[in-house]
Amino acid sequence: MPVNLLAPTADELLPVAGVTLGIASAGIKKPGKRDITLIQLAPGSRVAGVFTQNRFCAAPVTVAKRHLQKAAPRALIINTGNANAGTGEPGMQASKAVCEALAGLLGCAEKEVLPFSTGVIMELLPADKVIAALPDAVADCRADNWFAAANAIMTTDIVAKAVSRQASIGGKTITLTGMAKGSGMIHPNMATMLGYLATDAAVSQAVLDTMLKHAADHSFNCITVDGDTSTNDAFMLIATGQAGNAEIVDVASADYTALAAAVTEVSTLLAQAIVRDGEGATKFMSIRVEGGSSRDECRKIGYAIAHSPLVKTAFFASDPNLGRILAAIGYAGVDDLDVNALQLYLDDVLVAEHGGRAASYQEADGQRIMRQAEIGIRVVLNRGSADATLWTCDFSYDYVKINAEYRS
Amino acid sequence: MPVNLLAPTADELLPVAGVTLGIASAGIKKPGKRDITLIQLAPGSRVAGVFTQNRFCAAPVTVAKRHLQKAAPRALIINTGNANAGTGEPGMQASKAVCEALAGLLGCAEKEVLPFSTGVIMELLPADKVIAALPDAVADCRADNWFAAANAIMTTDIVAKAVSRQASIGGKTITLTGMAKGSGMIHPNMATMLGYLATDAAVSQAVLDTMLKHAADHSFNCITVDGDTSTNDAFMLIATGQAGNAEIVDVASADYTALAAAVTEVSTLLAQAIVRDGEGATKFMSIRVEGGSSRDECRKIGYAIAHSPLVKTAFFASDPNLGRILAAIGYAGVDDLDVNALQLYLDDVLVAEHGGRAASYQEADGQRIMRQAEIGIRVVLNRGSADATLWTCDFSYDYVKINAEYRS
Repeated sequence: MPVNLLAPTADELLPVAGVTLGIASAGIKKPGKRDITLIQLAPGSRVAGVFTQNRFCAAPVTVAKRHLQKAAPRALIINTGNANAGTGEPGMQASKAVCEALAGLLGCAEKEVLPFSTGVIMELLPADKVIAALPDAVADCRADNWFAAANAIMTTDIVAKAVSRQASIGGKTITLTGMAKGSGMIHPNMATMLGYLATDAAVSQAVLDTMLKHAADHSFNCITVDGDTSTNDAFMLIATGQAGNAEIVDVASADYTALAAAVTEVSTLLAQAIVRDGEGATKFMSIRVEGGSSRDECRKIGYAIAHSPLVKTAFFASDPNLGRILAAIGYAGVDDLDVNALQLYLDDVLVAEHGGRAASYQEADGQRIMRQAEIGIRVVLNRGSADATLWTCDFSYDYVKINAEYRS
Repeated sequence: MPVNLLAPTADELLPVAGVTLGIASAGIKKPGKRDITLIQLAPGSRVAGVFTQNRFCAAPVTVAKRHLQKAAPRALIINTGNANAGTGEPGMQASKAVCEALAGLLGCAEKEVLPFSTGVIMELLPADKVIAALPDAVADCRADNWFAAANAIMTTDIVAKAVSRQASIGGKTITLTGMAKGSGMIHPNMATMLGYLATDAAVSQAVLDTMLKHAADHSFNCITVDGDTSTNDAFMLIATGQAGNAEIVDVASADYTALAAAVTEVSTLLAQAIVRDGEGATKFMSIRVEGGSSRDECRKIGYAIAHSPLVKTAFFASDPNLGRILAAIGYAGVDDLDVNALQLYLDDVLVAEHGGRAASYQEADGQRIMRQAEIGIRVVLNRGSADATLWTCDFSYDYVKINAEYRS
């Protein structure tokens, strides 16, 4: 049961000028499933991307990175049901064959197509099935197809994840629409998630790259479900330049600040939606570590808490066994940490200080907060001014069930 | 259900000359539970210890480390039901009060007593209850009490863990008996585990320290259940010097080699017993990474596999979804790893090479091995001569159940 997460309605999702989307069924894993999503971009569009850092990155990731370096993309082609990862050279050929076939249909170059795959790993992508479905996907392309696309890219997701925002930039109304998929194997540096965010703003390539990195570092790279990092993740930021604003070329400009804030907001909502839909999730936890000497140490401590199966099962049980959080802080790998100097809060309740339980702490207060669906954990290190906020979910019977039976 | 793990019988556990053990009930958590274990050592005994590296180490760990630096111990006092961790200065006072009271009973110095605690964290140890039970523990001390002691130190353990061995060293028969507790929060650098290994051999302090470190690095520091590192762990090696052998003073001697091998064997059996009794475990996995350029990178890759909830749930389900192992290898953090150069085996079956599924691999073979209770995972990196072997268990519904309901 996703935690406080509603699927978007079709009419909430705004078309982005210069972007059309088409869905089709290739029958990769199950006959009739809409498993192919095509995103077409108008000429002049710019794309920035970040990809998984897994050394076993999938064939489509390798191909997409190469193509992105060579040319401005005209199309993105996404399949579910098969990740085409751990498939060696035949996997590379399959991904390239899909790009080549789509390029032929669209009249563009192979390098102008970016492939994305998600699903089971170590099974070769049936390129012939994907290629056979491409004409249907092209024929289906419409600007108002975001809702169908957000549904078509799901795998173990329960709820589709997509959101739109508008902002006024340089006197023009700018539209942003994004969608994402993912619900397990979620970890920084791109877990099994795919994210696509398009805006009609005009942005230079260098500025778009910076904006993407900032947004990813404050959204998709701040979430975790189970600590696993997938072979296939990607987050793509598309700017079609059709809104009529003066091209943003300076990261110090007010236009940049306004657009970057909107991009980061949409990215954060999508990233949080992935955690809310985390496999088996029953609780949504925000973990804020502040007063650190560096953002890196704040993230280390936050992830030690977020990844601890003992902490996650205690939250599932609504059990204020909060010593488990202290233990996780203690093994986070911050060698010179003075555990007597920090405070631990659960929402607004001071739980621990001076190396132990706070004198004012009452178990009833802890119990009350642990029963909530959304819980804030705050660690104040009192040794600097850096901070970091991460989002995660609890660890339930259903997590085991979902992952034990994924292929069955 | 522990995996292929039988409790020892009382007569399998051999007394160690110079060591007596006594059990008592302090009613720390549950009335009547035998929750206090005392180990008394004859004068002239030497003790080496390794302790948790958690920055939030428990009060007894801090006290035991200090005492061990100051004097040769005459007694070790262990309680279950309360870890006395995250308890600040009052926790320190409680641990010291226990040591002081026991020293008074035994006629030794407070610094000659080492305290150990395991159980719930962030609750102050009720020192008065422990102190009240000490006379019973002293009165119960016998050389043939290892079986009762191994049972008394258990917390969530299902099966008691203890083993004896004998070896011939310099013409004398040497006895080794060890016991351990632990079944969750098990991770290198001492997870929630306590281990005590006593021998009657004569060994210099410096050699004993070296022997302990080697044994820990090849046993307790090679296991993981859930990646959590506890606040309380300790592994103590005791040498009473009563066997009559010539004192071992040289790590290059044949006597050292023989004794160290026996110590490491007993330590490894105890460490593996902890994994076999891992919370909710249904499978025992040996993960061997070989052909690495360093032991450190082999351990990194091994632990990435061992900690992955996706891998662990796949083993629970007997599902040969082996791409999850490749993904874990890929995100282990070995930056220059060439994933096309490695081989992955499941027992003797080659699963993957050249970056993907091996041409010879049949899913039926993978399925057959995944159904076994004991499974060997072998990764051959083909880039050097270093190796490492780790042991872990799978991740089941019962792991969540046990840890969600631990305090209930």
